[in-house]
Amino acid sequence: MSSVHVELGERSYDVLVAANLIPNLGRHMAARMDARRAAIVTDENVGRLYLEPVRQALSDAEIDSVEIVVAPGEASKSFSTLERVVRELLAARLERSDIVIALGGGVVGDLAGFAAAITRRGMSLVQVATSLLAQVDSSVGGKTGINTPEGKNLVGAFFQPRLVLADTSTLDTLPPREFRAGYAEVAKYGLIDDADFFSWLEENRAAVFSGEDARGEAIRRSVAAKARVVATDEREAGTRALLNLGHTFGHALEAACNYDASRIIHGEGVAIGMAMAHRFSVHQGLCAPETAERVERHLAAAGLPTHMNSIPGRGFSTSELMDHIAQDKKVKAGRLTFILSRGIGEAFIAEDVAPHSVETFIAGELAAEPAPALQTGE
Amino acid sequence: MSSVHVELGERSYDVLVAANLIPNLGRHMAARMDARRAAIVTDENVGRLYLEPVRQALSDAEIDSVEIVVAPGEASKSFSTLERVVRELLAARLERSDIVIALGGGVVGDLAGFAAAITRRGMSLVQVATSLLAQVDSSVGGKTGINTPEGKNLVGAFFQPRLVLADTSTLDTLPPREFRAGYAEVAKYGLIDDADFFSWLEENRAAVFSGEDARGEAIRRSVAAKARVVATDEREAGTRALLNLGHTFGHALEAACNYDASRIIHGEGVAIGMAMAHRFSVHQGLCAPETAERVERHLAAAGLPTHMNSIPGRGFSTSELMDHIAQDKKVKAGRLTFILSRGIGEAFIAEDVAPHSVETFIAGELAAEPAPALQTGE
Ligand SMILES: NC(=O)c1ccc[n+]([C@@H]2O[C@H](COP(=O)([O-])OP(=O)(O)OC[C@H]3O[C@@H](n4cnc5c(N)ncnc54)[C@H](O)[C@@H]3O)[C@@H](O)[C@H]2O)c1
Ligand SMILES: NC(=O)c1ccc[n+]([C@@H]2O[C@H](COP(=O)([O-])OP(=O)(O)OC[C@H]3O[C@@H](n4cnc5c(N)ncnc54)[C@H](O)[C@@H]3O)[C@@H](O)[C@H]2O)c1
Ligand SMILES: [Zn+2]
Ligand SMILES: [Zn+2]
Repeated sequence: MSSVHVELGERSYDVLVAANLIPNLGRHMAARMDARRAAIVTDENVGRLYLEPVRQALSDAEIDSVEIVVAPGEASKSFSTLERVVRELLAARLERSDIVIALGGGVVGDLAGFAAAITRRGMSLVQVATSLLAQVDSSVGGKTGINTPEGKNLVGAFFQPRLVLADTSTLDTLPPREFRAGYAEVAKYGLIDDADFFSWLEENRAAVFSGEDARGEAIRRSVAAKARVVATDEREAGTRALLNLGHTFGHALEAACNYDASRIIHGEGVAIGMAMAHRFSVHQGLCAPETAERVERHLAAAGLPTHMNSIPGRGFSTSELMDHIAQDKKVKAGRLTFILSRGIGEAFIAEDVAPHSVETFIAGELAAEPAPALQTGE
Repeated sequence: MSSVHVELGERSYDVLVAANLIPNLGRHMAARMDARRAAIVTDENVGRLYLEPVRQALSDAEIDSVEIVVAPGEASKSFSTLERVVRELLAARLERSDIVIALGGGVVGDLAGFAAAITRRGMSLVQVATSLLAQVDSSVGGKTGINTPEGKNLVGAFFQPRLVLADTSTLDTLPPREFRAGYAEVAKYGLIDDADFFSWLEENRAAVFSGEDARGEAIRRSVAAKARVVATDEREAGTRALLNLGHTFGHALEAACNYDASRIIHGEGVAIGMAMAHRFSVHQGLCAPETAERVERHLAAAGLPTHMNSIPGRGFSTSELMDHIAQDKKVKAGRLTFILSRGIGEAFIAEDVAPHSVETFIAGELAAEPAPALQTGE
């Protein structure tokens, strides 16, 4: 079993990455915290597959548990579902020292993590990440939150878990489209600051997708990259913003699609967003066209979309996208902040991007040839 | 102008206590933070009186502002009002570096403070406390939150303000019943660990109520006491729990009255709760009966209730109160935690109170002579 340590002083914790971790969940918890009672928060899909083994693992370690099951999908990251989860935690009479276990992908992790942060002003949190995206990204680093009609992830808390489990065996049941989407965040770590890792992915993509050892290796390297960034900048005062590569465009597309999963899911938005960020960097004269093409080629080879035009339904307008971009978190005092790039592994924070240059760029992208509709089937 | 410093490392801040502070609000903010845009959150009562002067003070310092007005009363500390405030902050396009000003009593302070904590994962917060209770207690120390049907203040965040203003002139318009209720928290500081302050209050009560210099002095001493406790135990791992003197019983009574202000308001619950905590201490053989009588005498002289029986409508049952007590925050792993006392200024944390002794005590209190109905008029 491999373990990555997230160093945050008294808020430090371990991320365990390995196959078949869930049967030992209770023991891993008991070794690290005073664990007597827990609430397992999950969604219907993940619950059907993993609630029973998790319950069993807890009971093996003499931890009492209750379950809170929410509907799968981004729509559960809402005020109303948050209220329901919080009230169920209270109704179960869980106390401040008891544990919330977020069992699922990023949706469950963000929602249950936020509920743990605000219930009794902070319970203990354990993330059991079951999607590739959650294992390599959302379960690590303490960002939790929900969406509102004004935008994605605009409401939340920084709240670190006490332990994260990335049981790679759970990925065997993950729908292929979700695996591809999570892969976008894996590739992101290479694109930010690790050209070697990006090259390694170019060579090992097939093995990562077929679930061989390379899959675990890719997850470990991704977690280690995320842990490094979080340890230096827990609250995104600076470099942590690099993790938002592709996310400003991506979030705008998700919002423009009303978070409708039949059109786009988070990782697909990130894939298109990363490709756009590189093309925009070319457009700004910062980056060679070959770099942007290399990024597109790798994402496309992984079955990911790279253009807005490939989103089913299309029909975005520049002004609607600009509107969502302005509402995004990464706006500082009226100036647009983007993560741009000078090459593979050379992303940087550009804090004063002129809105009109973004507008021109988006208009150009929208005017381009319609691409074939994104394949959303499995 | 007098200023109390709350020492919390990089989260330190000042509490300014003086008459006529509001006209200089903008300047005090500008001296301490990058202040360009702010949202003023207030309730209808306070807004009618102070929104215009606050707006003027901000515009004098060239700070743009928007307003968010909620209904007065405890019912606004709800998930639905929280959602409304958060969404109005987002709709106004306020950014993470912008400021939420909580203008009002403890209800507005707790609600707006929590909204500031979770909007964009934390904006800047300034508390402009206008009730006596808010000036001496709720605006200082960073506890923010809302209620749910499961109980009071069970959902929230620790979130420190950047600045607190206690403009004592605003107390001239505070309804007398609210002033009395806030006074319960003033007396609390004497009862916890400052017998001299309690004696001073016994002598100066009339001057405090008539708004002479003694009023400012009582507020300053209270804020200094709260600041000391918060600085040593920000997150209530230990001694900060002493501030809950009277609150376990008080919260149970508030909940049993459905937070109906025509029956009970927070400070009245605290007054009854503190009298009960002392009588319970006598019942447990910890404290002399004369001490409990002295506490009752002072609270009654201030026009505060000291028995459950004086709550209009009465009719509480032991089991319903025990139920609310078990749901209170101060329960640890099944044992009841109470703040008890050995004498004036000698409160302590009792962590293993047997539920049945509380039950016997409450049953005894309920069986006592009915007291005259509480005077809730002004
Ligand atoms: N907090 C952060 O730092 C952070 C970072 C990145 C993304 N996110 C958030 O994460 C969310 C996306 O996460 P996601 O992609 O995991 O989505 P998700 O949680 O919706 O999971 C995707 C789908 O896969 C199913 N699923 C998950 N694990 C499974 C398994 N092992 N077997 C079968 N089905 C499984 C889920 O039920 C769901 O239908 C977004 O809301 C995004 O904003 C947060
Ligand atoms: N966060 C904490 O540490 C903490 C501590 C103690 C109490 N509290 C909370 O504080 C709340 C009670 O606060 P409160 O007693 O200030 O109640 P409140 O905010 O409801 O104010 C009481 C009433 O007085 C009005 N008012 C306030 N200032 C006024 C003024 N200057 N002139 C005229 N009217 C004015 C309000 O509109 C309201 O009707 C409770 O919810 C309690 O849980 C929090
Ligand atoms: Zn992401
Ligand atoms: Zn109080």
